[in-house]
Amino acid sequence: MAQQPLTRIGLAGLAVMGQNLALNIADKGFPISVYNRTTSKVDETVERAKEEGNLPLYGFHDPEAFVKSIQKPRVIIMLVKAGAPVDQTIKALSAYLEKGDCIIDGGNEWYENTERREKEVAELGLLYLGMGVSGGEEGARRGPSMMPGGSIEAYKYIEDILLKVAAQVPDSGPCVTYIGKGGSGNFVKMIHNGIEYGDMQLIAEAYDVLKSVGKLTNEELQSAFTEWNKGELLSFLIEITADIFGIKDDKGDGYLVDKVLDKTGMKGTGKWTVQQAAELSVAAPTIEASLDARFLSGLKDERVEAAKIFKSGGFSDILTDQHVDKKQLIDDVRKALYAAKICSYAQGMNLIRAKSVEKGWGLELGELARIWKGGCIIRAIFLDRIKQAYDRNANLANLLVDPEFAKEIIDRQSAWRRVKGKVAG
Amino acid sequence: MAQQPLTRIGLAGLAVMGQNLALNIADKGFPISVYNRTTSKVDETVERAKEEGNLPLYGFHDPEAFVKSIQKPRVIIMLVKAGAPVDQTIKALSAYLEKGDCIIDGGNEWYENTERREKEVAELGLLYLGMGVSGGEEGARRGPSMMPGGSIEAYKYIEDILLKVAAQVPDSGPCVTYIGKGGSGNFVKMIHNGIEYGDMQLIAEAYDVLKSVGKLTNEELQSAFTEWNKGELLSFLIEITADIFGIKDDKGDGYLVDKVLDKTGMKGTGKWTVQQAAELSVAAPTIEASLDARFLSGLKDERVEAAKIFKSGGFSDILTDQHVDKKQLIDDVRKALYAAKICSYAQGMNLIRAKSVEKGWGLELGELARIWKGGCIIRAIFLDRIKQAYDRNANLANLLVDPEFAKEIIDRQSAWRRVKGKVAG
Repeated sequence: MAQQPLTRIGLAGLAVMGQNLALNIADKGFPISVYNRTTSKVDETVERAKEEGNLPLYGFHDPEAFVKSIQKPRVIIMLVKAGAPVDQTIKALSAYLEKGDCIIDGGNEWYENTERREKEVAELGLLYLGMGVSGGEEGARRGPSMMPGGSIEAYKYIEDILLKVAAQVPDSGPCVTYIGKGGSGNFVKMIHNGIEYGDMQLIAEAYDVLKSVGKLTNEELQSAFTEWNKGELLSFLIEITADIFGIKDDKGDGYLVDKVLDKTGMKGTGKWTVQQAAELSVAAPTIEASLDARFLSGLKDERVEAAKIFKSGGFSDILTDQHVDKKQLIDDVRKALYAAKICSYAQGMNLIRAKSVEKGWGLELGELARIWKGGCIIRAIFLDRIKQAYDRNANLANLLVDPEFAKEIIDRQSAWRRVKGKVAG
Repeated sequence: MAQQPLTRIGLAGLAVMGQNLALNIADKGFPISVYNRTTSKVDETVERAKEEGNLPLYGFHDPEAFVKSIQKPRVIIMLVKAGAPVDQTIKALSAYLEKGDCIIDGGNEWYENTERREKEVAELGLLYLGMGVSGGEEGARRGPSMMPGGSIEAYKYIEDILLKVAAQVPDSGPCVTYIGKGGSGNFVKMIHNGIEYGDMQLIAEAYDVLKSVGKLTNEELQSAFTEWNKGELLSFLIEITADIFGIKDDKGDGYLVDKVLDKTGMKGTGKWTVQQAAELSVAAPTIEASLDARFLSGLKDERVEAAKIFKSGGFSDILTDQHVDKKQLIDDVRKALYAAKICSYAQGMNLIRAKSVEKGWGLELGELARIWKGGCIIRAIFLDRIKQAYDRNANLANLLVDPEFAKEIIDRQSAWRRVKGKVAG
């Protein structure tokens, strides 16, 4: 590698998320060193940095040269798989790090692992942050939402970088803030993902009702979701749902959405959220239902067999035989979806607050709503309302008892009940 | 203490459950030694043994004398609080136990603690069983359902005692069987409790629908539940629910049931069941809902405040304004309750099977249904049907696809949907 001046920051772990975050940082004018155990990924990233505008990104095949290329106090972001790979990366890097340097885990790590590692590296004189990063590959490159927790001293080292790298939302600033001590950044990101599970499940159920009960075509579904995305439901997930209905199958007739296998998997964060809800004595029915739906979706073969048994036993499609006023149903489902979304976010916020109290983290729920407004998967105009609710009352017992949200729920009660009635058949 | 011949078995931990199980064992003709750290409990138990028919029960104030009073290989059942007290009791007793002796934990212990202890005492040459005991205080005295797991050798030492002490069910024998290795006895008892949470929640919801939507009086509720207890729902929990509606408040006017605070707590087993469901990727919505309902019940003050806010916001009681045919509603709710009960038990059985596969326990689900038929809180005629389903097909993927249960669900679908419709308002 050619000699170059010391860089401002390092990033280890160059899968797509890591590559994109590194390029984003370089793009904002911060010279960055990158490293990956499989060295071809390093060369790939360097190549991309050239192509994407000769960005100040420097690749290293050797951990020692990588570490020594960064200005002190050194800050290195890891983007490797949660669990053992994080420990291995810390071990590899800390051999060359010096007192006062800092390691940041940008993965979806279990918060207690972060707290364990924070203590372990503290014995070497190193600082540590567990930083949830949301927004997927696109977000990492263009501006993610970031939830750094742990050493505030370490946060201060790179605050200027994070503020520029994060998604920028007009009137509410960059989508990053110092979350709190210990594993709070990872915990908040975990709940963010649980909320995302809930959002996706609610959208899936809205789709199912409109399709099964309302017999809407894909064109009608697209038009409904596109309309919804102009109002209170305006959000990234509603937007991409509207888009998907328009995509034709490029390998056959019809629409892509009708060819997708109804089977999904999961990583750890939804499961952890449900387990933490039980641990914290917080009811989280929406997030639980979304996790259960994924479990059941995974049993595709079993469900196909069960459907045969029930069909041959005379199980009738009561649902699809109802008279439906499409326009009314679309309107009712929109209102039901919004009301359910309020309930779901109330659960997520209750979980964060309960943990914050248990751990003494002092988390600010309104600030979390603010940094989720851009960059991340759950970004939505709705988060503005949550921010406002906590601005009105930082000690709100539950989102549902905020006067504005209470009113919105009351206004939607009848529509929500009508949808439940239609689903009952 | 007076000198006496060696006893057959020992029991340590003389809270009411322990006292009652010891008296039950003595009552079946097995001389038993008992011990408790707080010695007044020992004297109390000895007194009760005299009163209840000069039963062969011998009390000890000293752990050494207690242990040495038991014939070899010694077997001691502990009935102390789960967690640290179990470790303390093991420590106190094992000082005097000898190679080949056996310790049984009869509490609601987390199964991994049992597996840890089994290994620890194995180093002292001791055998270990984790034995779930269901039936509460009454069951312990008259005949509980017992779920011993761990050392089969230890099980064989006391099989004759357990077979006599357990609840006896005509045509299906004593409510005990060797469950399997390791912590399987505790795990199965934990799921049993999770199922019990589900049963109680379903009954509570049936009550709520009949009372809120159907406006049934306590007399009508009692008559409905009494009728139900003659058919497919025949069970201990339906029986005691019917009974409670008849009990007048002895401190004022009206019925006791209308004075009970709608606020409950919980111990650990329901929470563990939900956490294990997430861990095992098994959907357990009924058990989750029952745990959530307990969490919400605990927030009584918050709920009272929320009700005020919603009422002043114009939230109307849509539910209670419906026209209802009481007879039809009672019949529909009965069918809905039974259908939901099938779903709930399917979840519990799926949990046990998933864990059995993970741990290689080889658990027999039909046998578990058999030993739950008597003694325990969830005892019900319904368990006979579950036993039969697994007799028909031991590898049944899910209770819902057993031909008989599938038929029962199909037959009840319309009634179940009508109830859902009424609840939607």
